[in-house]
Amino acid sequence: MTSVITLLTDYGLEDGFVASCHGVIIGITPEARIIDVCHLVPAGDIRRGAAILAQTLPYLPAGVHIAAVDPSAASARRSIAVEAGQRIFIGPDNGLLSWALLASGGARVAYEITNKELFLTPVSPTFHGRDVYAPVAAHLVAGRRPDELGPRIPLDRLLSLPTPTARIGEGAAEGEVLSLDRYGNVQLSVTADDLATLGIQVGDALAVSMGRRQITVPFRDTYAAVPPGDLVAFTDSAGMVSVAINSGDAAQRLGLPPGAHVRLSRVP
Amino acid sequence: MTSVITLLTDYGLEDGFVASCHGVIIGITPEARIIDVCHLVPAGDIRRGAAILAQTLPYLPAGVHIAAVDPSAASARRSIAVEAGQRIFIGPDNGLLSWALLASGGARVAYEITNKELFLTPVSPTFHGRDVYAPVAAHLVAGRRPDELGPRIPLDRLLSLPTPTARIGEGAAEGEVLSLDRYGNVQLSVTADDLATLGIQVGDALAVSMGRRQITVPFRDTYAAVPPGDLVAFTDSAGMVSVAINSGDAAQRLGLPPGAHVRLSRVP
Amino acid sequence: MTSVITLLTDYGLEDGFVASCHGVIIGITPEARIIDVCHLVPAGDIRRGAAILAQTLPYLPAGVHIAAVDPSAASARRSIAVEAGQRIFIGPDNGLLSWALLASGGARVAYEITNKELFLTPVSPTFHGRDVYAPVAAHLVAGRRPDELGPRIPLDRLLSLPTPTARIGEGAAEGEVLSLDRYGNVQLSVTADDLATLGIQVGDALAVSMGRRQITVPFRDTYAAVPPGDLVAFTDSAGMVSVAINSGDAAQRLGLPPGAHVRLSRVP
Repeated sequence: MTSVITLLTDYGLEDGFVASCHGVIIGITPEARIIDVCHLVPAGDIRRGAAILAQTLPYLPAGVHIAAVDPSAASARRSIAVEAGQRIFIGPDNGLLSWALLASGGARVAYEITNKELFLTPVSPTFHGRDVYAPVAAHLVAGRRPDELGPRIPLDRLLSLPTPTARIGEGAAEGEVLSLDRYGNVQLSVTADDLATLGIQVGDALAVSMGRRQITVPFRDTYAAVPPGDLVAFTDSAGMVSVAINSGDAAQRLGLPPGAHVRLSRVP
Repeated sequence: MTSVITLLTDYGLEDGFVASCHGVIIGITPEARIIDVCHLVPAGDIRRGAAILAQTLPYLPAGVHIAAVDPSAASARRSIAVEAGQRIFIGPDNGLLSWALLASGGARVAYEITNKELFLTPVSPTFHGRDVYAPVAAHLVAGRRPDELGPRIPLDRLLSLPTPTARIGEGAAEGEVLSLDRYGNVQLSVTADDLATLGIQVGDALAVSMGRRQITVPFRDTYAAVPPGDLVAFTDSAGMVSVAINSGDAAQRLGLPPGAHVRLSRVP
Repeated sequence: MTSVITLLTDYGLEDGFVASCHGVIIGITPEARIIDVCHLVPAGDIRRGAAILAQTLPYLPAGVHIAAVDPSAASARRSIAVEAGQRIFIGPDNGLLSWALLASGGARVAYEITNKELFLTPVSPTFHGRDVYAPVAAHLVAGRRPDELGPRIPLDRLLSLPTPTARIGEGAAEGEVLSLDRYGNVQLSVTADDLATLGIQVGDALAVSMGRRQITVPFRDTYAAVPPGDLVAFTDSAGMVSVAINSGDAAQRLGLPPGAHVRLSRVP
């Protein structure tokens, strides 16, 4: 078993919440190697948490991967552990893990986490990350088997976020806004490979249609290839097409929320 | 001796200050296991630092616990090391450690830190965390004894913050605002156990009196049990009663500063 | 070879970017000890990144030191590895490393990083930190030699930031604004030793000339030695003279940008 435990939460960094999770893990399994994926997921933003986890995952060693973003605060849904590839994911059954599971080749086995012997006592209803996920992850690294966590769940009963759509049609790729990052870059569900299939290359101009609006954006290697203040499309570090403004905030200027439909084609 | 060193500061994350402390510790004791408790304590806010440390402590392995929040910038007060339970606390003698000491069963022995052999040279008057606390903690983990740090101090000479009051009276619990967190949740010094003593249970309505004002707030399992925008009281992850607004900022709406007096009773 | 790898970037903490770097390093070299120097360097601010790295360096164990702040997003310049003292620095050839190299006794050997065997595949043009610097650093810690990274570069071909000037003249020290920190403290390129050479001591009053303006500022041990709201000069934790406002923002009030010329003398 690996000793890597990763943590993604919306706990923020202004309290001792993240440290509590570290402390619980190290108290149980001093040899655990903890990687903080991100703790500044906007509070309760399941979709953003799912995107960050799925896109960071290819660069993380296999391990036990905790995710805790839960606007319902553990009151209304179960906690799950899901095996996929060589990884084990732990978190709420609210869709947060679903894109990471896809990125790991799909869920193989899922368990509801019910074995209270492995929890802290008492369990705070607002802090499962510390009282359930952290100790369970530490016990897994220490040698417990996933089937000791609780009963199996049929895989088709796991809650999933809608898989972001991307479709290649007649000279155009259609997709949606996947995620907005802190720079205001608008990440689309269309990949650079999708554009290549359409014969669109770096150096071309892209027609980007959003609802009734259409704008023309140069497709370049990086956002830095255009003057500050200009719109640009480029392949981001996750391999996705992103629309950005060099030294500016494209999300704000374009007013595109996550999930918004977008159509890309080459300007002749 | 444990190898765990924890760090709580108001240094922020926009400079290399925290890294300096890590570097000093690792340079002296490569096997140290460092846990960052919090570095975003509001600058100079001793009370908030004390609350975060005391409330995170139950989840941290025993170790050497550094705290550095010091509006006087080391000019006017001494540095101390205090043993409590299996832990050693290091920081300024300004009350910052006092609630953590209480939470650890009370101070057992205290030393003034004066042994310059263990410091970096020169000691910056504005950065004791790096030049005094970090190397001293590392040397303790490496095997130095606390009595090598300097002379003993009578325990009753340590500066303490006023212990937050909570009093259970005739059908009501009185207390104060302990702390505000980043979500604007108002943490009170009244515990869920205090309310239970009064026969107040989840599902009841609470009358919350603050000065001349009185509001009625539902007491629920979590803040998510009320519609967004509504006030709610719940037991937070530290076991304290907190007043919050689901997806909102209760501290701002109620205008309650830390230390403000509050009275809780059941609405019949 | 040391196992310490340090990371300074402008990636921010709201995404999984930093975690990707950690994951890549640990995947290659599980025994690496990673120290996060700072990830909140303002985006693309080479000068601020250079200042933080150089000033934190004296407190970091010798190791492999990654720095990634690059407004040109890797499109226009090469990646370099530079040996200085017992350290190896890795980053873009845009001046970011130059002050750290000075602080380490000067560059001894430099290599262009071109050995694609050591990179992730494919290399994202916008994320060299993850795809080039992180794996290269991990391979160095794992035993690769710097001369395996690519061809040597003449040291005089490395891009450098202008070395901050400081000159001691007739009863006055001249220098420039080196850096602004998060508190709004204005760090000058003049050291406490420079002032001592001029016979200026703590307790004196300083005349600070900036262009046509001149102000008088008390020179004290710490910013806390003056009432809140007052200007003060003191020796900061890096040994540099800084102008601050106790509990206020001196950078804002004085309107001094990095690089601005400043002259200090004693008020008789």
